[in-house]
Amino acid sequence: MSNRMWGGRFATGPDAIMAEINASIDFDKTLYRQDIAGSKAHVAMLAKQGIIAAEDAARIDEGLDAVRAEIDSGGFTFSRELEDIHMNVEKRLADLIGPAAGRLHTARSRNDQVATDFRLWVRDTIDDLDSALADLQVALLDKAEAHAATVMPGFTHLQTAQPVTFGHHLMAYVEMIGRDRGRFQDARARLNECPLGAAALAGTSFPIDRFATAAALGFDRPTANSLDSVSDRDFALETLSAASIAAMHLSRLAEEIVIWCSAPFGFIRLSDRFTTGSSIMPQKRNPDAAELARAKTGRIIGALNTLLIVMKGLPLAYAKDMQEDKEPTFDALSSLSLVIAASAGMVRDLEPDAKAMKKAAGGGYSTATDLADWLVRVIGMPFREAHHVTGRIVAAAAEAGLPLDRVPLATMQAVDDRITEAVFDVLTVDRSVKSRTSHGGTAPANVRREIRAWRRRLAKEAKALQGA
Amino acid sequence: MSNRMWGGRFATGPDAIMAEINASIDFDKTLYRQDIAGSKAHVAMLAKQGIIAAEDAARIDEGLDAVRAEIDSGGFTFSRELEDIHMNVEKRLADLIGPAAGRLHTARSRNDQVATDFRLWVRDTIDDLDSALADLQVALLDKAEAHAATVMPGFTHLQTAQPVTFGHHLMAYVEMIGRDRGRFQDARARLNECPLGAAALAGTSFPIDRFATAAALGFDRPTANSLDSVSDRDFALETLSAASIAAMHLSRLAEEIVIWCSAPFGFIRLSDRFTTGSSIMPQKRNPDAAELARAKTGRIIGALNTLLIVMKGLPLAYAKDMQEDKEPTFDALSSLSLVIAASAGMVRDLEPDAKAMKKAAGGGYSTATDLADWLVRVIGMPFREAHHVTGRIVAAAAEAGLPLDRVPLATMQAVDDRITEAVFDVLTVDRSVKSRTSHGGTAPANVRREIRAWRRRLAKEAKALQGA
Amino acid sequence: MSNRMWGGRFATGPDAIMAEINASIDFDKTLYRQDIAGSKAHVAMLAKQGIIAAEDAARIDEGLDAVRAEIDSGGFTFSRELEDIHMNVEKRLADLIGPAAGRLHTARSRNDQVATDFRLWVRDTIDDLDSALADLQVALLDKAEAHAATVMPGFTHLQTAQPVTFGHHLMAYVEMIGRDRGRFQDARARLNECPLGAAALAGTSFPIDRFATAAALGFDRPTANSLDSVSDRDFALETLSAASIAAMHLSRLAEEIVIWCSAPFGFIRLSDRFTTGSSIMPQKRNPDAAELARAKTGRIIGALNTLLIVMKGLPLAYAKDMQEDKEPTFDALSSLSLVIAASAGMVRDLEPDAKAMKKAAGGGYSTATDLADWLVRVIGMPFREAHHVTGRIVAAAAEAGLPLDRVPLATMQAVDDRITEAVFDVLTVDRSVKSRTSHGGTAPANVRREIRAWRRRLAKEAKALQGA
Amino acid sequence: MSNRMWGGRFATGPDAIMAEINASIDFDKTLYRQDIAGSKAHVAMLAKQGIIAAEDAARIDEGLDAVRAEIDSGGFTFSRELEDIHMNVEKRLADLIGPAAGRLHTARSRNDQVATDFRLWVRDTIDDLDSALADLQVALLDKAEAHAATVMPGFTHLQTAQPVTFGHHLMAYVEMIGRDRGRFQDARARLNECPLGAAALAGTSFPIDRFATAAALGFDRPTANSLDSVSDRDFALETLSAASIAAMHLSRLAEEIVIWCSAPFGFIRLSDRFTTGSSIMPQKRNPDAAELARAKTGRIIGALNTLLIVMKGLPLAYAKDMQEDKEPTFDALSSLSLVIAASAGMVRDLEPDAKAMKKAAGGGYSTATDLADWLVRVIGMPFREAHHVTGRIVAAAAEAGLPLDRVPLATMQAVDDRITEAVFDVLTVDRSVKSRTSHGGTAPANVRREIRAWRRRLAKEAKALQGA
Repeated sequence: MSNRMWGGRFATGPDAIMAEINASIDFDKTLYRQDIAGSKAHVAMLAKQGIIAAEDAARIDEGLDAVRAEIDSGGFTFSRELEDIHMNVEKRLADLIGPAAGRLHTARSRNDQVATDFRLWVRDTIDDLDSALADLQVALLDKAEAHAATVMPGFTHLQTAQPVTFGHHLMAYVEMIGRDRGRFQDARARLNECPLGAAALAGTSFPIDRFATAAALGFDRPTANSLDSVSDRDFALETLSAASIAAMHLSRLAEEIVIWCSAPFGFIRLSDRFTTGSSIMPQKRNPDAAELARAKTGRIIGALNTLLIVMKGLPLAYAKDMQEDKEPTFDALSSLSLVIAASAGMVRDLEPDAKAMKKAAGGGYSTATDLADWLVRVIGMPFREAHHVTGRIVAAAAEAGLPLDRVPLATMQAVDDRITEAVFDVLTVDRSVKSRTSHGGTAPANVRREIRAWRRRLAKEAKALQGA
Repeated sequence: MSNRMWGGRFATGPDAIMAEINASIDFDKTLYRQDIAGSKAHVAMLAKQGIIAAEDAARIDEGLDAVRAEIDSGGFTFSRELEDIHMNVEKRLADLIGPAAGRLHTARSRNDQVATDFRLWVRDTIDDLDSALADLQVALLDKAEAHAATVMPGFTHLQTAQPVTFGHHLMAYVEMIGRDRGRFQDARARLNECPLGAAALAGTSFPIDRFATAAALGFDRPTANSLDSVSDRDFALETLSAASIAAMHLSRLAEEIVIWCSAPFGFIRLSDRFTTGSSIMPQKRNPDAAELARAKTGRIIGALNTLLIVMKGLPLAYAKDMQEDKEPTFDALSSLSLVIAASAGMVRDLEPDAKAMKKAAGGGYSTATDLADWLVRVIGMPFREAHHVTGRIVAAAAEAGLPLDRVPLATMQAVDDRITEAVFDVLTVDRSVKSRTSHGGTAPANVRREIRAWRRRLAKEAKALQGA
Repeated sequence: MSNRMWGGRFATGPDAIMAEINASIDFDKTLYRQDIAGSKAHVAMLAKQGIIAAEDAARIDEGLDAVRAEIDSGGFTFSRELEDIHMNVEKRLADLIGPAAGRLHTARSRNDQVATDFRLWVRDTIDDLDSALADLQVALLDKAEAHAATVMPGFTHLQTAQPVTFGHHLMAYVEMIGRDRGRFQDARARLNECPLGAAALAGTSFPIDRFATAAALGFDRPTANSLDSVSDRDFALETLSAASIAAMHLSRLAEEIVIWCSAPFGFIRLSDRFTTGSSIMPQKRNPDAAELARAKTGRIIGALNTLLIVMKGLPLAYAKDMQEDKEPTFDALSSLSLVIAASAGMVRDLEPDAKAMKKAAGGGYSTATDLADWLVRVIGMPFREAHHVTGRIVAAAAEAGLPLDRVPLATMQAVDDRITEAVFDVLTVDRSVKSRTSHGGTAPANVRREIRAWRRRLAKEAKALQGA
Repeated sequence: MSNRMWGGRFATGPDAIMAEINASIDFDKTLYRQDIAGSKAHVAMLAKQGIIAAEDAARIDEGLDAVRAEIDSGGFTFSRELEDIHMNVEKRLADLIGPAAGRLHTARSRNDQVATDFRLWVRDTIDDLDSALADLQVALLDKAEAHAATVMPGFTHLQTAQPVTFGHHLMAYVEMIGRDRGRFQDARARLNECPLGAAALAGTSFPIDRFATAAALGFDRPTANSLDSVSDRDFALETLSAASIAAMHLSRLAEEIVIWCSAPFGFIRLSDRFTTGSSIMPQKRNPDAAELARAKTGRIIGALNTLLIVMKGLPLAYAKDMQEDKEPTFDALSSLSLVIAASAGMVRDLEPDAKAMKKAAGGGYSTATDLADWLVRVIGMPFREAHHVTGRIVAAAAEAGLPLDRVPLATMQAVDDRITEAVFDVLTVDRSVKSRTSHGGTAPANVRREIRAWRRRLAKEAKALQGA
């Protein structure tokens, strides 16, 4: 029952091993659109600068369009002998247009070409991720708005601490994702310099116009140092860092969904769109999508780690080690894309059980802090003293088996006789929640204000994007 | 010879174990300045809002100054029983000023307090790292300027590829560090929101002014969601990501220094300031500082990994797991600080052996690309054809044991009879280097232009910083 | 409020930087016992082989004992100028006994010396960890025995699946820890070769007896290749791998403790020995020890990652990078030691709420599989058909709001008329649990058998250890 | 030029997202042979135990053979709707043999089934890796034997330290790989317990014989705890740990190959089987295979990290997170297999330039230690004094520009007048190397002895394997 495929394959000798370890076409074909776009920009510039003839440029440009159409349609046969996407495209171009194809590679090399292609791909992917994250924010805002006043227990240490609203809880994730989007945007701005024209490593003696190719490809400017241009993979690393932090955020949401779906919690219900059932236990709904979203954090962090390890200690300029940059990046970013989509789907799908949440929110003397704050505010106790007085009242309540808002006033006054009937105004979970009106606090009015602010911000972004 | 200290210690029972695992004072005392600054801002705001009396606030403020002075002077005894820096400070404050100290903790909790302290520390450290990185850029610029025209081999795959200048090579690192500084700045801008006043997790019912405390502590604004405020460690993670990428860059420089210092290369010489000698082999200079700089990348990436793992899957809001955020962050950022200082020191210290570099630059037919480009430019061959013609000429040269600039014209013409005497203009390493005038190319004039541009940029930054 | 300590310190120049990055005494003093033991073995061998005089050896040996006594007593002043533990010890030896001390370093170097010291330390630590893990197994066995028949819900996806016993659940951890101990033992066996005498990297021309020093230090044999001896840190990496997997196991237990302690679950109660209270909410018990145990997994995995990154791509033989091996190893293994002790403490401390567990076990139609199995076993249905029939019965039960063991027979027979009264024998959680008698199944008798088997195994190990 | 494939796909709604995140058939089809073997063992046992009828078992067994043949031949269509390999196989079985197929899944579940399949796959892969590593040892032994006396510089810090032989250097890797193989063997022994029959998580009430299925599948015994059986992925983690350490070893060899191939070193030459040329610089040989071998360490360590993160903090028993175990394991172990094959290929292919190596070995006063040792051995100086005397002689030699073996005796005697003509016997690199006869030292006779010992060991293993 052996897997001796590998051994078997490699036994045929060095050629099989070298082909297997060296060829990148199996994964870098993902870059074909970026590769062809880069070549089109390059050839237009070469013609404009008089480095190649206009008619050659025109034929190359048409040929590249034809190659792209072939790949788009699925009618292109990739060849491992040609190793990578660059040679696959150029060879096909030569088949289509003849020797003029040989002029395309003037004043560039595969080193700056692949750096350009991969940057473009990462940039495109950041744009996709950003819009997916914005969509997740919308899903969270919608659900938060519907539950701006739905009370649930706020936990610390997974212990009931103080009541909060479900809307407020969801808005915490809107903030996290806002920062994630900021990180991706910063990464995008920093990567948006064009390495094309750095050539193998030293620049070129041809009178190329790197500003022109940069502009044509939507870059802000060309890169400033040719050695750095072909040795740099910061753009992938920074994007993977942002992706790792974003995935970590979504793993927290996923963990909460799993816990909330458990029978003892019973805070939310997911439909069978995001759970798998059991034909034998029809009430069972395994939150598979949440578990997988949580788990995929592992491979995303793993990919960041992988690329940092690959790059550590590499002398300048290009080294073949850098070919190991693409698979982890492709895998991690497509995994994140999937996790974002699944998260948005689950947020839209989940239905909170408001009654169960509220019941849990009232447990554990969750309004004890409200009592202490009342003692400070109304009676003027130092906080630390109020804290101790509250502790004694809660202990009395616990002994009597009563929730805080049903402890007799006399019992409270036995602990501190300055306490008045007015204290009961702050002891229910609804009152508690409403009272937290400090900036960022859980009061429903606050939550709604934050939702409105975020909706305005998203609308503005969308408008800006449309304008762009 | 056992290390049974642990077993022995823990055998005394649960108290010893719990004290050991729970107390954070051994490391969070690092935050004392930030903790006290946060408390001072908080107490001023409480008084201004009428939440505590002005005289209490004044006494607390003076007391906090006194505590800080005690710690500054080394005369403070930290207590493990008081667990953390917050309680150590507050307890000492109570000793000094009596019960009024108990009013300090009104409308806040340790959850928002530690989040504020740690953010402030990270922000301060980013500022330190930024100025250290700027200093490293200056060291690189100075050395690059001195060697803007010093020719060395440019390597790909550690194989001689094309000649470049040593100045150009160093400028690649100036670019990398420029991006590193950008990442730290972006992290700083994103973290610059103040969590103070989020209280335990839900906000507070006291009429606090979070905008005031935020401003007093140099933050741009208060955070927008109380649950997020106490659950968020993005600021540490993003800073560790930037640190990991920066460390990776410096590991590449370190690797190059180690290789350049080896006897077969002999490209540079480090003084005994950054090497360790051997009393038995006086000529031996072990590049220890470079090796340690390279190695410390491991612990910096390890710290990033550590904190991502800690945070993965944590339900909101605060969990004690988050106490494990500080040690890796402290260790990684102080390690990076050391690596930057060592790198700047080595760059200033190193002396290139220009002769050895130039000799190596001329090996390996490093100007073959220049020949091919000449064929394209002057004769008009398609690049791919020029590439093949050059290959045949180099093969002939190799067979004859001659460098490219000494191959007889006749030999070249035997391969392609359109080649003329003019070709020799491009075949020396000096000519090659000078010809690479494309934007970002290695021509000395380019290198000098980039150095000037960077100097202007650094001067502008310094001025802006002074103004700030 | 800047942290400019570093910048300030380093501003004094290269010497401060080099001292900071190069000196290892701050952490390698941990190895002093191992270092002195290694030196004693070495000097005894040198004398026996006639390489140094017996009287010199005797004075060195006595001198080393004196140095060790000084360090043991805390009366030794470590010097950073002397860089490391080896030179600190040797210098003090010279102070004590004069020039004869200079003969100690014959036929060895710091490279083989530190490799020996660190191996000894790791070996000692493995022994400590093994006995701590064995103690944790005892804690689990004791608790499992007390609860061999205490029914709780068995979860998959944190959804109630089938009833199991709490004892059975705890025994899963006994198995995991058994494997952990096996991994540490294997690492110990593999590391138990002595590098002493490999000298700097090439061996020595002195007629040393490496078998003698190996035996004196409890090693099985000397290492076989001198280059490998000084370049190898596998022993630390393998131990950190075992530690990472063990920490992962304990993070699972910690996660369960946190969830079980939450109010909605309420499965167990931890005393205040392993929780922290809140003076304001006296019933609150934050499971801090469990959370920290869970979190420390991060730094242990981080340390493994760190050392793998340090070692990646290092040319033979010794490189200064390898000095970065100790801090992560010390930190990770002492963290693991603490986590093991805390885990054992919590297991001993925790009290299950058998009633709450049993109630939860009966929810969610957890005996549906028992019904399906009955249909297969008694009626002879193919499993897949039985599965579907059960699904329909459970659906009917859910509609009627009844648990499975209270669904009327007629209702069942309406789904399949071959069902008889006998089916009710398998539908309670107690019956379900008792019926799982397959090897490794959750039946209480099985659980007790496994406990007995493990106790025998531990007793045998303890006896073997005593004999050794 | 957007990659909006994902967004586009997911826009079709939850079903597409859930299918994408949940289905595992795309990668777990790799396990088909193991899955079918497990089912065959299970069904045979069910029949033997009288749980299903013999004729049903026979039909199932035949049907499974038919399914396997279909997959082997490439004629099987995998279906994503059926999610995983288990359901794909069982559904096809039902098509082939009808309702009897429904009896196969009696007394097991997918949880124990996949645990069994994956363990079998890992076990098979360990066997493949072991034989590949043994082959690499043979390649190293052959090359080491040919160069047992070929002198090269031994480096520390990449600085010339003492001469060693190339054979001795290669034998260091034989030792490392020997430890790697030991780790894989230990992992194999520990994983060799069969989880089949643990069922969903609690065991089963059917009278199954888990010892029989374990034996039929080549396991040593069944696992002892059903919860652990379905929750455990230690076998993958331990194998990935061993793989990470092995990959790290091979990254060191790869780094050395890259450095040795550089022009300034020129120690070895690789043929174009493992390098890529440049048609323009025919003498250029980029060591791509070595660079990729070095880089792949990143993804192997990344995979270990990934799975540790996935498993951290998972409550028992099965969680869907664990589905993320396979892709990183498949990828890492197949990458390692490729790296081993490439390493063996490169070792066989490489040709050392003995002259260049010897010349470099003689540089840097590499025999200074030999001089010091001579002073100790012959004159009886304490080592530390000899060390200083040597330093002064080397300094004199360096000043005179002479290698150590050509310094006039008078010059030496000016430093210490006890030095005699006999000292010259130890000062050449050949003499130095020959003198290092301590166990594990670099003397050619030692190296040859070690080679013979390893050959005997490998022969014995091969014989044992044949017998097995």
